[in-house]
Amino acid sequence: MSMIPRKDLLDIASLTNEEIEFVLANAVPFKDLFKRSVKKVPTLKGQTVLTLFYEPSTRTRSSFEVAANRLSADVTHFDIESSSVVKGESVLDTVETLESMRVDYIVVRHKQSGIPGFIAKNTRASVINAGDGWHAHPTQALLDAFTLREKFKDLRGARALIVGDIQHSRVARSTSLIFRRLGMHVAYLAPGSIMPRETPPEIPRFGNWDDAFAWKPDVIYLLRVQSERMDEPFFPSASEYHKNYGLTDARVEVLKERGLWLMHPGPVNRGVEITDQGMNYEKSLINQQVENGIAVRMSVLYWLKPGAIES
Amino acid sequence: MSMIPRKDLLDIASLTNEEIEFVLANAVPFKDLFKRSVKKVPTLKGQTVLTLFYEPSTRTRSSFEVAANRLSADVTHFDIESSSVVKGESVLDTVETLESMRVDYIVVRHKQSGIPGFIAKNTRASVINAGDGWHAHPTQALLDAFTLREKFKDLRGARALIVGDIQHSRVARSTSLIFRRLGMHVAYLAPGSIMPRETPPEIPRFGNWDDAFAWKPDVIYLLRVQSERMDEPFFPSASEYHKNYGLTDARVEVLKERGLWLMHPGPVNRGVEITDQGMNYEKSLINQQVENGIAVRMSVLYWLKPGAIES
Amino acid sequence: MSMIPRKDLLDIASLTNEEIEFVLANAVPFKDLFKRSVKKVPTLKGQTVLTLFYEPSTRTRSSFEVAANRLSADVTHFDIESSSVVKGESVLDTVETLESMRVDYIVVRHKQSGIPGFIAKNTRASVINAGDGWHAHPTQALLDAFTLREKFKDLRGARALIVGDIQHSRVARSTSLIFRRLGMHVAYLAPGSIMPRETPPEIPRFGNWDDAFAWKPDVIYLLRVQSERMDEPFFPSASEYHKNYGLTDARVEVLKERGLWLMHPGPVNRGVEITDQGMNYEKSLINQQVENGIAVRMSVLYWLKPGAIES
Repeated sequence: MSMIPRKDLLDIASLTNEEIEFVLANAVPFKDLFKRSVKKVPTLKGQTVLTLFYEPSTRTRSSFEVAANRLSADVTHFDIESSSVVKGESVLDTVETLESMRVDYIVVRHKQSGIPGFIAKNTRASVINAGDGWHAHPTQALLDAFTLREKFKDLRGARALIVGDIQHSRVARSTSLIFRRLGMHVAYLAPGSIMPRETPPEIPRFGNWDDAFAWKPDVIYLLRVQSERMDEPFFPSASEYHKNYGLTDARVEVLKERGLWLMHPGPVNRGVEITDQGMNYEKSLINQQVENGIAVRMSVLYWLKPGAIES
Repeated sequence: MSMIPRKDLLDIASLTNEEIEFVLANAVPFKDLFKRSVKKVPTLKGQTVLTLFYEPSTRTRSSFEVAANRLSADVTHFDIESSSVVKGESVLDTVETLESMRVDYIVVRHKQSGIPGFIAKNTRASVINAGDGWHAHPTQALLDAFTLREKFKDLRGARALIVGDIQHSRVARSTSLIFRRLGMHVAYLAPGSIMPRETPPEIPRFGNWDDAFAWKPDVIYLLRVQSERMDEPFFPSASEYHKNYGLTDARVEVLKERGLWLMHPGPVNRGVEITDQGMNYEKSLINQQVENGIAVRMSVLYWLKPGAIES
Repeated sequence: MSMIPRKDLLDIASLTNEEIEFVLANAVPFKDLFKRSVKKVPTLKGQTVLTLFYEPSTRTRSSFEVAANRLSADVTHFDIESSSVVKGESVLDTVETLESMRVDYIVVRHKQSGIPGFIAKNTRASVINAGDGWHAHPTQALLDAFTLREKFKDLRGARALIVGDIQHSRVARSTSLIFRRLGMHVAYLAPGSIMPRETPPEIPRFGNWDDAFAWKPDVIYLLRVQSERMDEPFFPSASEYHKNYGLTDARVEVLKERGLWLMHPGPVNRGVEITDQGMNYEKSLINQQVENGIAVRMSVLYWLKPGAIES
């Protein structure tokens, strides 16, 4: 059982089961460190982790920064908002600059799918995709899986209902994939206009909560509504979305009765995806997702090997 | 003499005399470290200090950052300018995120009074108020007191005149309080429109410098004029403010003759609160306030105990 | 051979040959560290390096930050974009604040020539000029020289052609100077409107590539076209610039035939200074310039002595 050293984490699809298992298993001792008040380990001492965010994201960036600090790495921000990208400077030129600076890890977010993979091909640094367009957000998926594994003895057969803008969500894509790789059943609930045209036949698609609840989910995974999408014609208004697809207080009651787990990648739009009362639901795992994000990202940084040859 | 462990620093009013004494006394050896060229101590190694600034402030943020670095803590910025606060995401949701990330200290600035206290109730992290609305700016008050204690054998009976926009100043509020707690006499000089309606009867209120000088102050503490307030009807123009309430060259002469100390929380608006010549006044403590800010903030970080139960 | 301790690096002109040699020579072992996978040395442990950028620059700032981290210094950003400079707060007041915070190094960029020198006079901290107006960019010059010294056994007699907006370029100024100090010959190629009126008589000035190539350069050093300058009447359009002064594919062929080295301070405007094909030219040193920037900046930080008296 020797894994091939892996340089990059680009998506869930390219991971072997063994690799998923490795990352999830090693996140456990990293999480335990904090319980034992060990705040910092010297694992990545002297290594440079660079964040390259073409889209701003305080939460994800901070989560990686704290994870890297706890491994004793140095963190540098090289963030380039889309609006200020220097005309004529390609992503490739930026990557060659970073490659020349010999950074060890590049954590990248970009609105265009595939950019992290393109970067990975052009650097010896380990590239971690922190979200690219509609494509993938693999560390979110890994932390989601880790969080559920703390609650289920065996994930096989567990049923997750993913709710919201499936079509445009990299979270939906990556998290669905890892849930299914771990033996779970996945279903989608979304307005027809933002339900993908083609989905795997094993994934049931629902248009309303009654049908979705009848599928008997164990976990409700709400996607974040992107407010900038609210203006688009195929998207209902915030209040209409809430009424039809949000977790209203009445629906929270169903969760309570059945004891279902609740997840959301954050930040929540209160009153849209979920009500205030829903945020206080005792089986909500939202804060545990954030907490586990640190340990899982530590595990990913620990696992990847800068300079490894991709097979 | 055992102090109850304290989790948060929210304002001066809630501190015991013993706690004020503890913070001021411990700032002395922290300041001495630099004189002895010891640049860094391992006190907070592995601890995470997070800055959460809803209002930008390069100076205060940097002062906390340098203080934390010198205690070997890791510093992460999670700054959210008011303009970009995600609609629908409450402060509570942000705090729950930070709580889940298990940061140890949250240094918070917000334009609304009371937000740091609200945050403190919802996290195990130690919360330090770096300025909330008109309410409080306790580390400024502590560094002001520390700076004067270096000049006066005994602060009891010393007289400080605070000048400017008393009404809207959290600095005025916190610094007045600590000065009086340490046995000083405090008076206010301000245009009537920005003098608070109600002040403690022990604090004389003056409308012009002649009356104020007649009170025989030992220390002149100028408040910063907020330029955004210049447009408001109850505020004179910058030049009128300077003429009536600023430290003109003629008034600097009075300070010189009497040997009075001069303070200002910075940054100074030259030509408004004070002239260029006033900035060169030899008994100005403005730069010493900045320098002492590092040692006092180190002392505060050292004193607070993340996770302590508030009594 | 004892050098006088130097506090600041403001420009190339004020350096002795011995100092230039010291910085270039010490950059070699710093570069070697990485080859030997030593990522970090404790040289500046506990020292504070503060960046004070009045103009944004992700690349230069990151290069200094990584260099400082690798010397185990703490890095704090105190960046003030021109637009947000507080009205009434002078550079001097900011410097007095930093001086009071007892930072050890200030890395400063400002659009106005001479500001770093002004700052240096008012602080005990070591000031490193990271670019001031049209004046100087000495660490760029040092890394350029270092990069060429890796390629030439002896720089004396080597010939560098500098191409572009000579008039407004601090890079042209500093890099010309160091090249000539190291015994190289330098020539300029530029549109007449942006060729300086007065240049040293030893520097030939060309108006077209044919004449410039006839001078038999060994190194082609392209300057970055500042896009904001494109609107000015004395500057040709981007496409006209490219046609007349850029490195077209035909001119790249000349470089190939003759085996000339190619340099650029970055970031490149593809299609303006250079074509895509030119970027792939095998004797391009552009990425090596970036890489060497880290080692050279480490060497500069190592060399300067905060608190030293300037002679």
